[in-house]
Amino acid sequence: MKLGYLGPKGSYSYEAALSYQTHALHLGFKTFYEIIQSVEDGMIDIGILPIENSTEGAVNSVMDGLLRTSRAKITGELVLPIVHNLLGTDKSIEEIRYVYSHPQAIEQCREYFRINHPNMMLLSCESSATACVLAKEKGSGYGAISSKTAAEIYELDILGEAIQDNSFNQTRFVAISQEDEVITNQICKTSIAFSFHNDSPGSLYAVLKEFAVESINLTRIESRPAKAELGKYIFYIDLCGHQDDPEIRKVLSNIQRITNFFKIFGSYPVFTKQARF
Amino acid sequence: MKLGYLGPKGSYSYEAALSYQTHALHLGFKTFYEIIQSVEDGMIDIGILPIENSTEGAVNSVMDGLLRTSRAKITGELVLPIVHNLLGTDKSIEEIRYVYSHPQAIEQCREYFRINHPNMMLLSCESSATACVLAKEKGSGYGAISSKTAAEIYELDILGEAIQDNSFNQTRFVAISQEDEVITNQICKTSIAFSFHNDSPGSLYAVLKEFAVESINLTRIESRPAKAELGKYIFYIDLCGHQDDPEIRKVLSNIQRITNFFKIFGSYPVFTKQARF
Repeated sequence: MKLGYLGPKGSYSYEAALSYQTHALHLGFKTFYEIIQSVEDGMIDIGILPIENSTEGAVNSVMDGLLRTSRAKITGELVLPIVHNLLGTDKSIEEIRYVYSHPQAIEQCREYFRINHPNMMLLSCESSATACVLAKEKGSGYGAISSKTAAEIYELDILGEAIQDNSFNQTRFVAISQEDEVITNQICKTSIAFSFHNDSPGSLYAVLKEFAVESINLTRIESRPAKAELGKYIFYIDLCGHQDDPEIRKVLSNIQRITNFFKIFGSYPVFTKQARF
Repeated sequence: MKLGYLGPKGSYSYEAALSYQTHALHLGFKTFYEIIQSVEDGMIDIGILPIENSTEGAVNSVMDGLLRTSRAKITGELVLPIVHNLLGTDKSIEEIRYVYSHPQAIEQCREYFRINHPNMMLLSCESSATACVLAKEKGSGYGAISSKTAAEIYELDILGEAIQDNSFNQTRFVAISQEDEVITNQICKTSIAFSFHNDSPGSLYAVLKEFAVESINLTRIESRPAKAELGKYIFYIDLCGHQDDPEIRKVLSNIQRITNFFKIFGSYPVFTKQARF
């Protein structure tokens, strides 16, 4: 089984990938786009993608990428606590002038740097593990925001511990695959997206009413620009239940009728700490 | 009149600031946070802040920052078309290896670089104008994503024109101030935020129902994480009308009763191309 994650080794995606499936061929990709494309093309069996973070919100490039899939479905989810550290090769934190990381990790530590190290320059790169490679290569004066696992892999010192602005920092990952998950008596979730031809006052209200009437719980609602003029949105909703449940099936079919664009990303078991995924 | 924008000179915020008020003392700040704080402290009269982009969505740090204001209100808005260019000192685009810009500008050109220049390294910095300063300083091999205005100010060549992924790329800015805008017969908008103590299936539905019943148009709805566990959100809504209109006043008071946290950012004239702001 081939499993793709945002590499290199030591990224948070790598930890999520290991946590999902220990015995697999773990392949590090350079972008989320390539992971999605490789699942679409059947080059890998599973792709692991971060989709939302409790501090920074939606991972926009993943949200936008999933909208364009035709074969890949969401088949699982995983919630990982995220603890960021400032890593480097220097003896003291005061020597660091440039700090690399993935833009999401930078945003999750912005207040920490503003308050404690306002003169450090924050530079974005492809992943928190790539940041370690760069900090190691460039040496003195350079740091990386990354995990303890990455500190070990890249032999960097931990100069600042748990530097994320929100102590309760979690990232939710989804697994995408062409194969449906075999579901037996597990509590499930379904992810959908939709938009309206014309946004009228009651459009979103009419969709939410369908869920409210059937007492279907929503665990997530997000809006993203439809990449046209301002004021046009694509809505993303995660709901409790499987798309094959009769009442969910009825509600989704009603929603499809009142929306212009409608897509089901998949139904998959809800993550619990006990379950592997 | 002192007016703060995300500097230095030549940033998109600078263009927005000039477009708002030509005859003012324009002060370039280093972060959105400092602009908001300076309006709160009365150090400047007006702050200009980008709040959403038609490609990339909400400007998270501005959204989060506005949530914490106590004196600054939104008193105006401005929509600016955003055209990104790749600037540098090299003769040919092929010589560029590193490209600086503000993270939002980088995200708005991601597909362009993925398809045309996959090996260029995209590095985030404080603003698209700072990116020009860096590209100029570092010279050959370095580029910046910025405007034509910035190319002129920093004497850089335009190596790639209109490189943004979405040809219809706009940013909406808001003006914040402690002073209320004098409103005379202008069509207005009101911006609010709210969250729920417990997210139940019908919470957001109940709020949207209030607007639907009174046929109040919504021009924007966004959700941002409440910075606590996943699944807790703060909702941002822009609605048509002024908070002092009797029916809006009634609806907002109903919403305040059914929400846990409720904030009105302000009422302000809707931007039209004819109006200055």
